Amino acid sequence: MNTQTTRKPRSDGLRSRHAILDASARLATVEGINGLSIGGLADHIGMSKSGLYAHFKSKEELQLATIDTAADLFNVEVVEPGVAAPPGRARLWALSNEFLAHLERGVFPGGCFFASVAAEIDTRPGRVRDRIVEFIEGWVGELFQTVKDAQAAGEIDPADDAEQLTFEIDAMLLMANAAYVLSPSPEVLERARRGIERLIGPAPAR
Amino acid sequence: MNTQTTRKPRSDGLRSRHAILDASARLATVEGINGLSIGGLADHIGMSKSGLYAHFKSKEELQLATIDTAADLFNVEVVEPGVAAPPGRARLWALSNEFLAHLERGVFPGGCFFASVAAEIDTRPGRVRDRIVEFIEGWVGELFQTVKDAQAAGEIDPADDAEQLTFEIDAMLLMANAAYVLSPSPEVLERARRGIERLIGPAPAR
Repeated sequence: MNTQTTRKPRSDGLRSRHAILDASARLATVEGINGLSIGGLADHIGMSKSGLYAHFKSKEELQLATIDTAADLFNVEVVEPGVAAPPGRARLWALSNEFLAHLERGVFPGGCFFASVAAEIDTRPGRVRDRIVEFIEGWVGELFQTVKDAQAAGEIDPADDAEQLTFEIDAMLLMANAAYVLSPSPEVLERARRGIERLIGPAPAR
Repeated sequence: MNTQTTRKPRSDGLRSRHAILDASARLATVEGINGLSIGGLADHIGMSKSGLYAHFKSKEELQLATIDTAADLFNVEVVEPGVAAPPGRARLWALSNEFLAHLERGVFPGGCFFASVAAEIDTRPGRVRDRIVEFIEGWVGELFQTVKDAQAAGEIDPADDAEQLTFEIDAMLLMANAAYVLSPSPEVLERARRGIERLIGPAPAR
C-alpha cells in the first residue's frame, strides 16, 4: 500500500501559522511585543512579508495571536505540570518550581514572557495590554486559590492573609525572573525557593 | 541698575541638554530605551533633529546620557532621602519607603526606570545593558550593606543570610513596581510594606 496517496493533506497553512507564532512568542521576549512587526518577523523567520500578511492582517492581530501562543506554551510548560500536584502546599510548590524550571530551560529567551511584555506595555492602553493583564490575573488567581486550598487543608495558617501571601510568593518568582535574565545563575532560583519556604514552609518530600 | 545687563549668560546649550535628557528619561519608561531615537525624541520635545544631533552624536550616546540622568533623578528622589536615615533598620525602611513613594509620585510614567529598562535590554549585550546592570548592582549593594548594618546593630538576627534578605526585600519592591504600573492602587504599595515588615520587623516610629 502506498501511504503517500492516502495520508492527510499537510495543512501547510495551519502548520506554518503555528511555527510563525512560536517564533514570534520567543522573539517578543527579546525585541518586545511592540518590536514585533510583520516586516521584522518576516525577516527573522525567512518568510516573505506578503506570506505573513496572508496570516495576519495587522500588527495588532499578530501581537494578540502571539500572546495566545505564549499563553498556551506557558500553560503546557508551567501550569499543567503544576496543577498535576494535589491542591494545597504541594501544588504551590509545584507551580513555583515549574515556573523556575521554565526560566532555567530558557523556554523564552527573555525569561517569563508575561513579565517581559507586561513591563513593556504597562503604560500603553489597548487590547494587547488587556490580554496581558487578563493572563496575569489568571496566574495570580491560580496561586491565590491554591493558597486558600492550603489553608483549608491546614497546611498554612488560615489566619494568614491569602492575598498577601500570594503577593509575596509571586514577588519571589518575579524577582527570580528579573535576576536570572540579567545573570543566569541557579543561585537566583534557589534564593526564590528559600524565600517561598520562609512563606509557606518546605516543599513536601516527593 | 539694569539687571538685564549684568546677569550671567543663560547657557542655553547646557540648559536644554538637561531638559532634553529629563524628557528622554521619562519617555524611556514608556517607549523603551530602544524606542528612543534622535528623530522620535526630537518630535516628542518639539525640537529639530539637527538640533538634537548637536547634543548627541548617536542613539547610543543619547541612551547612555539618558541612563545617567535617570540615575541622578533616582538618587535625588530615592537614595539621598533614604540614606539620610541612620544606618540599619531605619535606613532599610527609609530606602524602601522612598522607593515606593517615587512610584506613587510617578517620577517616571512607566514606574521604576531601572526595572523598566532592565526588562527591556536584559537580552541585549552592550554598553547600555552594562550601565543598567551596574546601577542595579549599586542599589542592591546599598540594600545589602544596610542589612549588614542592621545586623551589626542587633536589629536583625546576625545569623540571617544578608544576601537572602536583600533578595527578598528587593523582591517586594520589584513586585510593587510591576503591580503598581499595571494598576496604580496604594494597596499594592502597602502589600510591599507588609512583606518587608515580615522580613525585618516594623518601621521605627518617626
